[in-house]
Amino acid sequence: MTTDTNGAVGAALDHLRQHRDRHREELDEFLRIESVSADPDRADDVRRAAEWITAELDRIGFEHVSLHETSGHPVVTGEWLHAGPERPTVLVYCHYDVQPADPLAEWVRPPFDPRHEDGRVYARGVGDDKGQIFIHLKAAEAWMASAGRLPVNLRLFFEGDEEVGSEPVDEFIAEHPELLAADLCVVSDTGMQDDNGTPAITYGLRGIAYFEVRVSGPFQDLHSGGYGGAIANPATVLVQMLASLHDEHGRITIPGFYDTVRPLTDADRAASAAVPFDADEFRELTGVPGLWSGEEGFTAAERISVRPTLDINGIWGGYSGEGAKTIIPAWAAAKFSTRLVPDQDYHDIERMVVQHMRRIAPPEVRVEVRVIHGGAPALTPLDHPAVEVAARAPEDAFGKPPVFLRSGGSIPVVAALEAHVGLSSVLVGFASPNGNFHAPNEWMPVANLEGGMDALVRLWGALGEMTADQLRGG
Amino acid sequence: MTTDTNGAVGAALDHLRQHRDRHREELDEFLRIESVSADPDRADDVRRAAEWITAELDRIGFEHVSLHETSGHPVVTGEWLHAGPERPTVLVYCHYDVQPADPLAEWVRPPFDPRHEDGRVYARGVGDDKGQIFIHLKAAEAWMASAGRLPVNLRLFFEGDEEVGSEPVDEFIAEHPELLAADLCVVSDTGMQDDNGTPAITYGLRGIAYFEVRVSGPFQDLHSGGYGGAIANPATVLVQMLASLHDEHGRITIPGFYDTVRPLTDADRAASAAVPFDADEFRELTGVPGLWSGEEGFTAAERISVRPTLDINGIWGGYSGEGAKTIIPAWAAAKFSTRLVPDQDYHDIERMVVQHMRRIAPPEVRVEVRVIHGGAPALTPLDHPAVEVAARAPEDAFGKPPVFLRSGGSIPVVAALEAHVGLSSVLVGFASPNGNFHAPNEWMPVANLEGGMDALVRLWGALGEMTADQLRGG
Repeated sequence: MTTDTNGAVGAALDHLRQHRDRHREELDEFLRIESVSADPDRADDVRRAAEWITAELDRIGFEHVSLHETSGHPVVTGEWLHAGPERPTVLVYCHYDVQPADPLAEWVRPPFDPRHEDGRVYARGVGDDKGQIFIHLKAAEAWMASAGRLPVNLRLFFEGDEEVGSEPVDEFIAEHPELLAADLCVVSDTGMQDDNGTPAITYGLRGIAYFEVRVSGPFQDLHSGGYGGAIANPATVLVQMLASLHDEHGRITIPGFYDTVRPLTDADRAASAAVPFDADEFRELTGVPGLWSGEEGFTAAERISVRPTLDINGIWGGYSGEGAKTIIPAWAAAKFSTRLVPDQDYHDIERMVVQHMRRIAPPEVRVEVRVIHGGAPALTPLDHPAVEVAARAPEDAFGKPPVFLRSGGSIPVVAALEAHVGLSSVLVGFASPNGNFHAPNEWMPVANLEGGMDALVRLWGALGEMTADQLRGG
Repeated sequence: MTTDTNGAVGAALDHLRQHRDRHREELDEFLRIESVSADPDRADDVRRAAEWITAELDRIGFEHVSLHETSGHPVVTGEWLHAGPERPTVLVYCHYDVQPADPLAEWVRPPFDPRHEDGRVYARGVGDDKGQIFIHLKAAEAWMASAGRLPVNLRLFFEGDEEVGSEPVDEFIAEHPELLAADLCVVSDTGMQDDNGTPAITYGLRGIAYFEVRVSGPFQDLHSGGYGGAIANPATVLVQMLASLHDEHGRITIPGFYDTVRPLTDADRAASAAVPFDADEFRELTGVPGLWSGEEGFTAAERISVRPTLDINGIWGGYSGEGAKTIIPAWAAAKFSTRLVPDQDYHDIERMVVQHMRRIAPPEVRVEVRVIHGGAPALTPLDHPAVEVAARAPEDAFGKPPVFLRSGGSIPVVAALEAHVGLSSVLVGFASPNGNFHAPNEWMPVANLEGGMDALVRLWGALGEMTADQLRGG
């Protein structure tokens, strides 16, 4: 890094250190906004989160800051493109919506009233993903406030539908590629490798296809004494259908499901084996009595990242109150989803699953299957020139080299950016891998928030010393 | 029937006809009390229903009217024993508790604000079973008010735990046989054969064993992307366990379950075949696309009355809100119950089911199985002398001969009275077979309420012409 850049990076890092107290107050303000995208009653709160971001971007000095209407929640964009035409342009993607907080009773602290305790911040969205938007805002602010400029051309792109499948943002990407044109996309919606400061660069993601199925029988609940034996119980039919989706080898039984799964190469399996995976620790952290043997022929590390899966996400029907109600429920329903890997096409999988569920439905009931959302898997080559530079900044910030991961999660927008804008993505995330995303008691280490800002200040500095051509591998 | 008895019966029937308006108001008052025994928050309402009955019994002229504390809700007893020692003593059993009203949204009219429309009364409990208690109260009142006496010695025995398994009343029966001593028990907790005035005498009942199972895995909900593939999904395990409880022949797979089932004789099968069963009508009334083929080798009529069954009554776990939540739920639970036939012992069945569920639980999860309640099946011989006389009174009241049924439902107290007091029961019920017991929009034809009072006035008159010895078949 040049002396000039070194000095500018140092000044920006100093700026960060001098404003920790203000950062904390601002973060809490952002986390208090209940931006639950899945809940139609919270649409105004989701919009308030978008407006909070636009106000911040204006204040920091970004230009063309816009809140775009979509078929879902708003998209926020902004840019600062004065680093020079030969310098790289980087697109930053994060999402400001959060998962629902329920079951509320299992939160030890209120989900939308952030608590700073024992070096952690507890709140819904602090790791996934509002805390990471905040890291980006403060890193950019530190450069602008200390140097009056950014070392790279930066575009920001924040959405509010990630937790419900990103479909509106898929449309936005297809309609507004000019707002997203860049040499690289940096996504911050993933975690570190552990809670000891080991960074992680994620270069692959699973896709997703999410479904709801409802089995209906009689007009209304029936007395199980008077009708039991002659009525196909919708709850029984549902559990039989769902149970049949895995065979005794832990494989998914939907015809054609594995047809386009790219076989793992020796190199893939070696990369998977190189990622630390401690079964005892996994068991202890999650609280399960034992690990699932899962799909035969694959390790647990492979099964959670590079192999497709199917999980029931929720099931409900009939009586769940106190005591006994002797009914045949009129209907029962479930949500379930598959995680997909290259080269599975989520549209194909959606068709296969819907057809299969209809095919196995017995004629004594009515079965409806709805596709809730889908997203493609993604993979950026490990030898992409951006990967090395994106790895060095967190190493400098945290003092440890990163591990390189394929994540089991899904960020559908990464595949859409590749398809519509030709953009490769590198995922540099700062959440804790144990931070209870999508669960009660979500948390984020304060060290990761601070280290993340540090890493991004350094990353922009390092990328600012490259040309756009170099970054693209030209 | 003697001229004297004929005259007294006529006077009592006149009394009924003259007080229809008052009956309607009193019935509504009784139905408005929300006596949901399964809901701990309604315990006071359940007690109010018991108190309402004791006030009525006092007013009518019953003696030793008592509200007894039990381990559950109160038992109400009362007696009038001045018909003479040679006359029969009859015990009347009904229950004043009702099923929960949920799902509330499916009620067209409010469940606890009775509506009289088109010759029907709509309210929770009007058929099952408060409306039938009311029929008994008014029949006795008509005798007492018109003749100053009853033609038989009558004991009344009303409980408030029937919808949650009658366990407190089982204890009460064992502890207080002296309050229940009689020559015959008349139970009114069943229905007519149809809505065209065909009475039904029920001489057999199924037993029940009711369970709740909970499968737990991780401490809390986990991200299905980060953990899917290595964690046994508790909802998946639950549906696999529940699905395995039936085989492809519709038989229950719990080892030993059928061991003590008394094989059906040719006479049993002929009796079953003689009961009108119209598959098209059954389909139309319930709204199912088709009848379940169920247990192989038995007709639908047999499967709903004389064969044991297993039904899921409710299932719940994970996310059931709007849109998508990509979790592996921390736990999933279900309620399920078996209907039992002679000579299955519900205690044995409870042990078998609990052991079986534990045996099939995979080691990667925790499985808890709780017995919620149980009750024995019952059967009174068709040639019992009480059956003929009990059949004649509804025939006179409704103008049609009754059919003789074995019901698929369960009234555990019938078996307990046989075991502890040596009492045979005849079930004379007046509800509509389509009256939505245990479902939203419960209703009862006004004609059945009025005809039921008429039938009981006649039944007491006819029994009053027999001696106790004759009634017992001596």
